[in-house]
Amino acid sequence: MQQKIIEGIINGDRRMVARAISLIEDEASEKETILSAIFPYTGKAYCLGITGAPGAGKSSLVDQLLVLLRRQGLRVGVIAVDPTSPFTGGAILGDRIRMQEHALDKAVFIRSMGTRGNLGGLSRATKDVIQILDAFGKDVVIIETVGVGQSEVDIIKYADTTVVVLTPASGDSVQTIKAGIMEIADVFVVNKADLPGADRTVSEISMMLDLGGKKRAWRPPIVRTITLDGSGVGELHRALLDHREYLTSSGRLEKAREDRVRRDIVDLIEYKVKSTIWRQVSGSAEFELLVSRIMSRETDPYAAAVQILRSINLNGLSP
Amino acid sequence: MQQKIIEGIINGDRRMVARAISLIEDEASEKETILSAIFPYTGKAYCLGITGAPGAGKSSLVDQLLVLLRRQGLRVGVIAVDPTSPFTGGAILGDRIRMQEHALDKAVFIRSMGTRGNLGGLSRATKDVIQILDAFGKDVVIIETVGVGQSEVDIIKYADTTVVVLTPASGDSVQTIKAGIMEIADVFVVNKADLPGADRTVSEISMMLDLGGKKRAWRPPIVRTITLDGSGVGELHRALLDHREYLTSSGRLEKAREDRVRRDIVDLIEYKVKSTIWRQVSGSAEFELLVSRIMSRETDPYAAAVQILRSINLNGLSP
Repeated sequence: MQQKIIEGIINGDRRMVARAISLIEDEASEKETILSAIFPYTGKAYCLGITGAPGAGKSSLVDQLLVLLRRQGLRVGVIAVDPTSPFTGGAILGDRIRMQEHALDKAVFIRSMGTRGNLGGLSRATKDVIQILDAFGKDVVIIETVGVGQSEVDIIKYADTTVVVLTPASGDSVQTIKAGIMEIADVFVVNKADLPGADRTVSEISMMLDLGGKKRAWRPPIVRTITLDGSGVGELHRALLDHREYLTSSGRLEKAREDRVRRDIVDLIEYKVKSTIWRQVSGSAEFELLVSRIMSRETDPYAAAVQILRSINLNGLSP
Repeated sequence: MQQKIIEGIINGDRRMVARAISLIEDEASEKETILSAIFPYTGKAYCLGITGAPGAGKSSLVDQLLVLLRRQGLRVGVIAVDPTSPFTGGAILGDRIRMQEHALDKAVFIRSMGTRGNLGGLSRATKDVIQILDAFGKDVVIIETVGVGQSEVDIIKYADTTVVVLTPASGDSVQTIKAGIMEIADVFVVNKADLPGADRTVSEISMMLDLGGKKRAWRPPIVRTITLDGSGVGELHRALLDHREYLTSSGRLEKAREDRVRRDIVDLIEYKVKSTIWRQVSGSAEFELLVSRIMSRETDPYAAAVQILRSINLNGLSP
């Protein structure tokens, strides 16, 4: 079965891609074999991150970008991530509607992901799904995520270029946007630019970019879009190409991807070590004895941690 | 110096307590020796968590509880945690004002903590400061934290009894309160109960508690308070005593503290293992070779993680 899924992904079988993604979401044990096997086929997709507050118009923007990219013959994958929702129900309905539009277009693949279990899990799963879509042959993978906190900053880290979408609406005022979100922007979009206050939003972003006065190698452009009539989407597309060109020619793309590999390895090691520790420690007689000795103040958690560490066998780590 | 701090804490020297807390906030290496040495003197303090949205009136509530607890001759420590603020500046100013009130009262110790570095760090530091105040001889330690997300749910986990403070203001409507925050409540407070909408807020909470229809061993009471004139604070105090009595007589207090010890040990082990891995891996020749082989697709992160795990020496973990 694993072999069939692996071959399916590489040979462009949508059903096998969907199967692999489900295994990833379920944290199935087969997932690592699959990801390891498809890895040689990855590294070709360009990953685009789009983040912004709920209602900023990210989905419409992604849909219009999709049309542009498709016209150039590019194969596109979209991962819509909502870290605030433990249910993908709503998002799946949204998917269906969006899928219909692109139903006859086999070169487009759209998938929603919500939080199952912890946020770290969602960020890990998103990264793995990018790999799957990359090996599947997508030229561009778009991660669309609701920007509300630390979690989607973690998710968007896997993007080569990150677009932050704002609107002139008061609640989206630049001052209220989390600093972390602003720092990750390579391109700003002021969507719904026909609403009053668009000029102010643009100048607020601009002022913020000039704060500190340091010379930037890349100054994030600010693009105005109106998704209702599609205006500005062409300009956004050009800004994305500019940023990609900047990353490639400056060697920063290579450097960023290398850094991502470093973090990936360390994350994997930590994850494996944590699972192994938990499996060996949880419920073991030594552990429970230490817990009761701590409760009676005969020893303390620090001494207990050191003692347990001595007895943990990391050689038992499954590959 | 460490010995002086340790003895100072146990003998009730405020200056040494402050010194120890600073070491904890700075993640100084001495911190573990201190925490380990004072551990036998801990376990006596009852830990009270108070969480709620900004502006809900938590600080006033805590101040009035302080007066009540002091009247009974109890020694009280307060840790005011603001996970949203990387600066403790504002909070420190607030502290000074509050400290003046209790300035002549040596039995009260108030300290603010903001985010330095990551949120996990803040939660760890809060836990450590509880230990310090416990060994310092406080009968009650109050953690006051702004309730806005996952981070303060993690922080409040160290409380024996958790109070969730709501107000009748529309923004605090029960529907908008994060589910995670609702689940941790042992006692609800509807503060500013003289405002319109208080009845509705109380009945919303009540309805929410009855959702699912399952019989609860402890049904969180809903207490109305008006901090302006102190009304309801006595009732809150009785609700807290009731919950403590419930926890003690049912054996749940012991059980919860045991679970906390389990989690503490595992957290400590994971933290130590992660630091050790990072120290051995980061920048090592083997690691960098693997990174470049992954970049050229000769190997993959999964294989690399397994290979590195084999070579990591956990015996090198410092005690």
